[in-house]
Amino acid sequence: MINFRFSCPTEMIFGKDVQLMAGEETKKYGTRVLLHYGSGHIKKSGLYEQVTESLKKAGVDYLELGGVQPNPRLSLIREGIRLCRENGIDFILAVGGGSVIDSAKGIALGAVDNGDVWDFYEGRRKAQKALPVGVVLTIPAAGSESSVGSVVTDMDNANKRAYDDEIIRPKFALMNPELTYTLPPYQTACGAADIMAHIMERYFTRVPHVDLTDRLCEAALKTVIGNVSLVLAKPEDYDARAEIMWTGSIAHNDILSTGRVGDWSSHMIEHELSGINDVAHGAGLAIIFPAWMRYVYRQDISRFAQFAVRVWNIEMDCFDPEKTALAGIDALRSFFKFFGLPVSLAEIGITSEHYERIAGNCRRTNGDAVGNFMPLQSSDIINILKIAQ
Amino acid sequence: MINFRFSCPTEMIFGKDVQLMAGEETKKYGTRVLLHYGSGHIKKSGLYEQVTESLKKAGVDYLELGGVQPNPRLSLIREGIRLCRENGIDFILAVGGGSVIDSAKGIALGAVDNGDVWDFYEGRRKAQKALPVGVVLTIPAAGSESSVGSVVTDMDNANKRAYDDEIIRPKFALMNPELTYTLPPYQTACGAADIMAHIMERYFTRVPHVDLTDRLCEAALKTVIGNVSLVLAKPEDYDARAEIMWTGSIAHNDILSTGRVGDWSSHMIEHELSGINDVAHGAGLAIIFPAWMRYVYRQDISRFAQFAVRVWNIEMDCFDPEKTALAGIDALRSFFKFFGLPVSLAEIGITSEHYERIAGNCRRTNGDAVGNFMPLQSSDIINILKIAQ
Repeated sequence: MINFRFSCPTEMIFGKDVQLMAGEETKKYGTRVLLHYGSGHIKKSGLYEQVTESLKKAGVDYLELGGVQPNPRLSLIREGIRLCRENGIDFILAVGGGSVIDSAKGIALGAVDNGDVWDFYEGRRKAQKALPVGVVLTIPAAGSESSVGSVVTDMDNANKRAYDDEIIRPKFALMNPELTYTLPPYQTACGAADIMAHIMERYFTRVPHVDLTDRLCEAALKTVIGNVSLVLAKPEDYDARAEIMWTGSIAHNDILSTGRVGDWSSHMIEHELSGINDVAHGAGLAIIFPAWMRYVYRQDISRFAQFAVRVWNIEMDCFDPEKTALAGIDALRSFFKFFGLPVSLAEIGITSEHYERIAGNCRRTNGDAVGNFMPLQSSDIINILKIAQ
Repeated sequence: MINFRFSCPTEMIFGKDVQLMAGEETKKYGTRVLLHYGSGHIKKSGLYEQVTESLKKAGVDYLELGGVQPNPRLSLIREGIRLCRENGIDFILAVGGGSVIDSAKGIALGAVDNGDVWDFYEGRRKAQKALPVGVVLTIPAAGSESSVGSVVTDMDNANKRAYDDEIIRPKFALMNPELTYTLPPYQTACGAADIMAHIMERYFTRVPHVDLTDRLCEAALKTVIGNVSLVLAKPEDYDARAEIMWTGSIAHNDILSTGRVGDWSSHMIEHELSGINDVAHGAGLAIIFPAWMRYVYRQDISRFAQFAVRVWNIEMDCFDPEKTALAGIDALRSFFKFFGLPVSLAEIGITSEHYERIAGNCRRTNGDAVGNFMPLQSSDIINILKIAQ
């Protein structure tokens, strides 16, 4: 186990009707709010009205900026920054999923900075401050509601970049599983894949003796695996939706990272995919993660065998642990496929002609080598893309 | 799953040499510090010198109050409160285990209050404020380093009482597993029993569909079970000590309580035991918990069978789940016994003549009925004590 720091100051407020507390929670931090959201779905569902009523009741002024798309755009963030500056906004309330929250974090960074917000995402500067952000969560997936990260896409240059900083961790997250009842099956599955990927990025480490966090990761993975089929069979299963929603936060608030170094190369490769074709993040991960596993598992067959045995209940072949390890990878890929996610690049129209560019971008953005479990060179990335083809 | 709020703002700083950061971390909160500790052990081990040097280097003034005993005394807390008031203390640094931290929390409450600090523990008032508290942890057991609780004993009246409040949650906890190398085997085992009890109090709930937290609890229990024998065989096994230390915090920072209602009757009964005979908290729990289980398991045989199967790897007897449930309880009791903990009241000199008083005190302190899994009347408590006799 390696040294670490951990705290999770985001106030997680979880359960039925918690969205009605948006006003009183917001008021603890600000009085002139940017209400940030995505499509018009929250207007149809009645959530928009519930949140705005709650803000009004608490005496909080608000201004609106909707239109966040999946893989949130730098262009909208720039618009939000302008709005905040012109209107003396002191708090951003994100109502939506990971894309809306990540977009809100980007605006929060830029609104109190004089330079270009993209500098942070490109790694050219570290932010000094940010507006406080709160969340009403509607999609369990990204874990952004209690994380320090924000991932943004510059469509003009097909670049998707991440910025991590404690100062953009949300102050509170209102999490009502009922708000996820209307998520379509495909988006539910994408969310599950994203949550599982956040856990697996942490699970596949080369740091020895990480018993507690290994087991916590396995617990979280088994919870998602067990509950996805329940919500797909019955979209209004409150408890199953609740399990997935809460696991989505635990998966990414860094408690599962304590004392270990995660890998993150599947995420970095996936960022380049959706920079090219705008695939949903979870779907991109469903393609890349099993291929990455196939390519790197020989670095630590014991760990992959443990993953197979403990997460997928595959019987250990004590005479051939590699067989067990491979069976775990197959189980993951089959699981993704069963729930309608793509598991090959061909399915999303990415072909061998893109491989060089993906590998090149990925290397350029991430320095000398990509990932930690097995540091990848460009040739390794191309080999992984070939496995995923 | 039921509605909940969760956050864990304590800054956990974990790993080798972190005690050397005591000064710089303290300085973020105060400049006139009460350094609170227990026996002279920290002077022999060199920890006292490391901490005081670090405080001096950071330019922090300090005053000392040692002498905290296991089952921390109200009398010493009153002395600490007087010291704080007379010397304008603005921060309390607890160097020790749960008793020292709980004592520090008591002083923190009383130092800024005009009434009697015991009011809070007796449930007569809720505190409005408290001095900030920081921790250098030397004993993994109580989880007090990141919890909202404090347990104190009034020896004059043989009363042990708990007070829970967000305002006494420590600001930071410096956790170096090396500081636990010198813990004697018995104290190591007591700590493990205490950690396991914190998890099991949460695990045994009547709230249905709590998949994630069930599995997180099981993960934490298996980690303690797997690592206790390692540290007893090799006291300087850094990684095994680290697993136990980190599990001790996770066990009691309330992440394992999210969405469920724990039981806590074993703790409440144990408090009355150690009010009478000053037994170590973990040892008292090793006696009471398996007896409580024996008495209540029929309320939910499935849950006890799950505990047996998932925590103790006992094969499920699908034709006789009760047999599986009982095997899990036996496994727990045997585990405690194997590591030298008492598992009967006779071993600590508590006999049937005390039962009425224990049950009466326990009922008086905890209202109508004790615990949540199966609300206990006095007669139930006496029956449990008979099983434990």
